[in-house]
Amino acid sequence: MITRGDIKEILDRYKSTTIATICSHTALQIFHGAREEGFKTLGICKPELRGFYESFPLAKPDVFVEVEDYSEVLDDAIQKKLRIENAVVIPHGSFVEYVGAENILEKFSVPMFGNREVLEWESDRKKEGRWLNAAGIRMPLVFKKPSDIDRLVMVKFPGAKGGKSYFLARNEDEFHQGIEESGMKGGEYMIQEYVIGTRFYPHYFYSPLTGNTEFLSVDVRYESNIDGMVRVPHIMDNLDPTFVVTGNIPVVVRESLIPKIRDMGSSVVESSEQLFPPGINGPFCIETICTDNLEFVAFEISARIVAGTNLYIHGSPYSQLLYREPMSTGRRISREIKMAMEGGLLERIIY
Amino acid sequence: MITRGDIKEILDRYKSTTIATICSHTALQIFHGAREEGFKTLGICKPELRGFYESFPLAKPDVFVEVEDYSEVLDDAIQKKLRIENAVVIPHGSFVEYVGAENILEKFSVPMFGNREVLEWESDRKKEGRWLNAAGIRMPLVFKKPSDIDRLVMVKFPGAKGGKSYFLARNEDEFHQGIEESGMKGGEYMIQEYVIGTRFYPHYFYSPLTGNTEFLSVDVRYESNIDGMVRVPHIMDNLDPTFVVTGNIPVVVRESLIPKIRDMGSSVVESSEQLFPPGINGPFCIETICTDNLEFVAFEISARIVAGTNLYIHGSPYSQLLYREPMSTGRRISREIKMAMEGGLLERIIY
Amino acid sequence: MITRGDIKEILDRYKSTTIATICSHTALQIFHGAREEGFKTLGICKPELRGFYESFPLAKPDVFVEVEDYSEVLDDAIQKKLRIENAVVIPHGSFVEYVGAENILEKFSVPMFGNREVLEWESDRKKEGRWLNAAGIRMPLVFKKPSDIDRLVMVKFPGAKGGKSYFLARNEDEFHQGIEESGMKGGEYMIQEYVIGTRFYPHYFYSPLTGNTEFLSVDVRYESNIDGMVRVPHIMDNLDPTFVVTGNIPVVVRESLIPKIRDMGSSVVESSEQLFPPGINGPFCIETICTDNLEFVAFEISARIVAGTNLYIHGSPYSQLLYREPMSTGRRISREIKMAMEGGLLERIIY
Repeated sequence: MITRGDIKEILDRYKSTTIATICSHTALQIFHGAREEGFKTLGICKPELRGFYESFPLAKPDVFVEVEDYSEVLDDAIQKKLRIENAVVIPHGSFVEYVGAENILEKFSVPMFGNREVLEWESDRKKEGRWLNAAGIRMPLVFKKPSDIDRLVMVKFPGAKGGKSYFLARNEDEFHQGIEESGMKGGEYMIQEYVIGTRFYPHYFYSPLTGNTEFLSVDVRYESNIDGMVRVPHIMDNLDPTFVVTGNIPVVVRESLIPKIRDMGSSVVESSEQLFPPGINGPFCIETICTDNLEFVAFEISARIVAGTNLYIHGSPYSQLLYREPMSTGRRISREIKMAMEGGLLERIIY
Repeated sequence: MITRGDIKEILDRYKSTTIATICSHTALQIFHGAREEGFKTLGICKPELRGFYESFPLAKPDVFVEVEDYSEVLDDAIQKKLRIENAVVIPHGSFVEYVGAENILEKFSVPMFGNREVLEWESDRKKEGRWLNAAGIRMPLVFKKPSDIDRLVMVKFPGAKGGKSYFLARNEDEFHQGIEESGMKGGEYMIQEYVIGTRFYPHYFYSPLTGNTEFLSVDVRYESNIDGMVRVPHIMDNLDPTFVVTGNIPVVVRESLIPKIRDMGSSVVESSEQLFPPGINGPFCIETICTDNLEFVAFEISARIVAGTNLYIHGSPYSQLLYREPMSTGRRISREIKMAMEGGLLERIIY
Repeated sequence: MITRGDIKEILDRYKSTTIATICSHTALQIFHGAREEGFKTLGICKPELRGFYESFPLAKPDVFVEVEDYSEVLDDAIQKKLRIENAVVIPHGSFVEYVGAENILEKFSVPMFGNREVLEWESDRKKEGRWLNAAGIRMPLVFKKPSDIDRLVMVKFPGAKGGKSYFLARNEDEFHQGIEESGMKGGEYMIQEYVIGTRFYPHYFYSPLTGNTEFLSVDVRYESNIDGMVRVPHIMDNLDPTFVVTGNIPVVVRESLIPKIRDMGSSVVESSEQLFPPGINGPFCIETICTDNLEFVAFEISARIVAGTNLYIHGSPYSQLLYREPMSTGRRISREIKMAMEGGLLERIIY
């Protein structure tokens, strides 16, 4: 396990700070923001993508570290190279996916922005549930028995074969009818609330330097093939929809809901301070559905910069109420590091 | 009834102008725009929301007037406080909803931006229909008898029970078949054109100072649960969709349709001058559907700033053709007040 | 056929450059961009639309040439007028539609931005297919016989009556069942891959001056009545959906897909250099669907500025990584002309 002490020692030897990440996910935004804040930048990049990243005059990294496979960032030579370059790594979704949460925690001895421990809480479904629970945020309900059903539910069966038999029910009668038709009678099942509503993915940034949880922007994911399938509803019976994120669409939220959104963010920060002190810092996202009762139900926490922020390279309708400069989440990260450097507080945000 | 003379007297005693509104709906945008135009701002706010509105450095009101319930704005003490603060109130959707159109007209003796009389025309379905009619704007057709049906219609029955029996028909035969199946045979029904197409909510601003009706921006509403339900079409049979506005998505309109959109706006202004002189001024929105014949059918007029404008704090692709500065509708309101003050024309826009 | 020599002669007599187009489609953006780059502008306009185009202070053309019908741009008097005004015409979708690709190639003796020959390749389905093929871009597959079916396909029949009988199938069995039910047994049919996924319309700009294919922005089309019909899925059985473009919605693409998008653009440019040297220059768009395997399937090339770029008058999240100034596609065109003028290279981009 890489300790905060290990990282502090490395940071103490740094002569400057270079903002580094893997060239994917939100890297263009991270590099763009770092450049705007005056930082040198470093891209960990596959050779075939280098030309692509070099083609953006306002976002290209100053230095490239080429790797054939992103798991190589764990190699001693690469780690050493990163430390020599005074790299502070910004972990994004692809970084965590390619390198592995456990590997980052155990083997990646390069300073990173944000509390590493959060990776454990984000990647483990049960821990994530505890976290959301501790934050008082509604998750889809699970009903113990059919007679408890008081709203639309999806009845799920275990295993891949079970997936094909999922059905919807609004009450006990529909449950029993559905079970008959499913051919799964007598087996195990789970009765889970089926939440229908508008999807909102709010993007937060928590700064322990200011104590504020900023609501920077929000998006709707644009998923294949479901978002194409809605235009041919009759084939959904034939073909199961899939939910692969391919892009993001901008959105604003009804103003009376923004306090709720901000409160969810603050609660996630506060509960993280209890669960794994000193808790989360930097960007995160709560994946929610807003019901027609204007209640948010959360499915997941992404405890890092999310791809939906790529919409707002020049700021969002929310960041524009907070900052005069075009403030993306990527730029906000570099701003935070700059503020910490000026205040001698890097240890509070770098892990 | 608060008369223009009453308001003029109050305005004459004002020493300056403070832009005021209830902290909801489009308040952040209104405050942000007012600050950009150099105005002092005042937020009528529930105590628990004060911290939230204070957290936006570029949009927080300079002064708060705290109330437990927004209907308190009718209290003499609050009205007096607002007048002492030289408040000009910007009425948004939540303001009208919380305080009540009639109360505003009869009891709210504080200067407001925009012709108060418009509230009567907006909140009364029949008057609204007369207004759209006078403006020559298409509304959904109503067919008197089944043999008149020449397009897709929805057949509606009165009452809550009737709502469950609504059905679609494309011709007389389908009407008779539907009536049989509905179990409502022999009762009352309405045959209304069912308009399918893309939704557009254009945001206008009419300035009697310049004589121009500006097309500032346009949005699509993001509604719960219908916009989530489209992804599970098979449950729409089980569960009636709902249409609660939870957010807004940006959109641009095919350029050849913009003259039509602008003409609709101008017609609404001109007919308002006939119906309730001197007519509407300031922001308004026409809620439309664009058919595949590229015809707009209107459902409603919102005779005030609408929440879809919150997308465009820093301007829209249309305002950017009109103004060099980032011009939101909120800012446009303050700009109008500033222009009127400079020209000694406040009475023309404040009621 | 208007030759490059003909155009060179005209250009050599030009004393300055005026950016001209028909007042429709993307004209506001083109004029706005031209003004930002310091050009004089000229709008070919129907009299009834002149007032509309005059109402945009930052986008109104300096000069109007009024016509009753846009086909009049082929009249000698109008062509002469355009040459006297030193017009370089920017062809957009409506320009090509109103004037006709063949007429432009044969009869329109006014300098235009972009290789005219591209119009032939864009408007002819077979040539377009050859072009996409040469670029190595996937198009929907066509299966020769039912036993080849290995994915969802649509079975299509010729003629208008055939259209009503289209059906979906996932394998040979479903094909045979569908044919029976269709009532079209024994006749001709085509088995075409049915591609479901998210729609992306990337906007490119190829500059032969820099050699770069820039990915400037991307949109999703907002089509009537299909995008309204998704909210009433049960009527799709009753009523065939239509796909009339009425607007555009902004979107960003998953970062790991952008290299693929940029490569498609570069391939289209390179294959155009082979097929009709010197090939395409300026703006173009590839109409794609992204499957849940994250593969792009292309349906069409629009070899000119597309209306989706109207979203980005002040730049997009991609142009903002390339340019400090707000760079629309319209402005990029004028920037290219300015660069070519400065380098004495107008002949390379004007045809």
